[in-house]
Amino acid sequence: MKFCSACGQGVELKIPPGDHLPRHVCTQCGEIHYFNPKVIAGCIPEWEDGRILMCKRNIEPRLGKWTFPAGFLELNETSGQGAAREAKEESQAEVEITGLLSVINVPYVSQIYVVHRARLLRPEFGPTNESAEVRLMREDEIPWDEIAFPTIFHSLKFFFADRAQGIQGFHELDLTKRLLRPE
Amino acid sequence: MKFCSACGQGVELKIPPGDHLPRHVCTQCGEIHYFNPKVIAGCIPEWEDGRILMCKRNIEPRLGKWTFPAGFLELNETSGQGAAREAKEESQAEVEITGLLSVINVPYVSQIYVVHRARLLRPEFGPTNESAEVRLMREDEIPWDEIAFPTIFHSLKFFFADRAQGIQGFHELDLTKRLLRPE
Ligand SMILES: [Zn+2]
Ligand SMILES: [Zn+2]
Repeated sequence: MKFCSACGQGVELKIPPGDHLPRHVCTQCGEIHYFNPKVIAGCIPEWEDGRILMCKRNIEPRLGKWTFPAGFLELNETSGQGAAREAKEESQAEVEITGLLSVINVPYVSQIYVVHRARLLRPEFGPTNESAEVRLMREDEIPWDEIAFPTIFHSLKFFFADRAQGIQGFHELDLTKRLLRPE
Repeated sequence: MKFCSACGQGVELKIPPGDHLPRHVCTQCGEIHYFNPKVIAGCIPEWEDGRILMCKRNIEPRLGKWTFPAGFLELNETSGQGAAREAKEESQAEVEITGLLSVINVPYVSQIYVVHRARLLRPEFGPTNESAEVRLMREDEIPWDEIAFPTIFHSLKFFFADRAQGIQGFHELDLTKRLLRPE
């Protein structure tokens, strides 16, 4: 940020009175501009035969890598609504959100993932601007070496581990190191 | 937003190609500006005798009402780190985050609360700019009619209900109606 979004004049970095961090403060109107982490809402849509819906990314970053539907939460949305919207946008799929699976902090990119379990309502889906390919996959078909992000990798592992135990657990995780291939 | 924070020229609301919502787009440099929900990180600090740390708000909104420590997550923080920082800022208390208690969507204000359980490390705390009064309270001392926000009310209810059962559950909730006195 170089200019004030309220008045168009220049901003400077300084710590406002009573604050503890430098903020972008307008030199003209005094407005303080804050930047905060973003929420990524996602879901793992499961079809009735146990396969889950995966998307091959058609956009950067991680073009060509695999993910389940997930994207930035919009204003005035719940994380479940955002996750269902992303499923529609990225895979043309209609889903019903059934519960929360994982909350994963990714402080090095100032993101927090909120990932839901979901039911794929109909076996209808297909490629979109964001996804070059959309497929239902059995657990043994998941391309573990070609997963787009560690948050996606770990959420999938949580999902399948829970399912193997017949439970619907909730999982929290902080990813503090930038690793593309999780250990 | 009236002006582009990158170049200082005017912005207009329009739907960018491939997007589905109107965004603030710069008429000069073309930059697209996004606004997203904010994360509120909080914790319920418990002292070893079972009392929890509550703060009487010294600032608007809800001046004079009671809350546990909670505030906007900052860039490059995990929700646990943010919750511990807020505890320090609002109550002078040192806490250890012990787990996630609740995730509460509040779409009508574009917020998502991420509330943790915490252990108060020492019985040392006190008033701050943000809190006129800070007190350890037993469950039967909680001023249920004077709680600052529904998210705080519900998280406290989850906390005490779990404790009565001897469990540490995880709770998700979507608050879709603006109610100051939850039913
Ligand atoms: Zn200004
Ligand atoms: Zn511009």
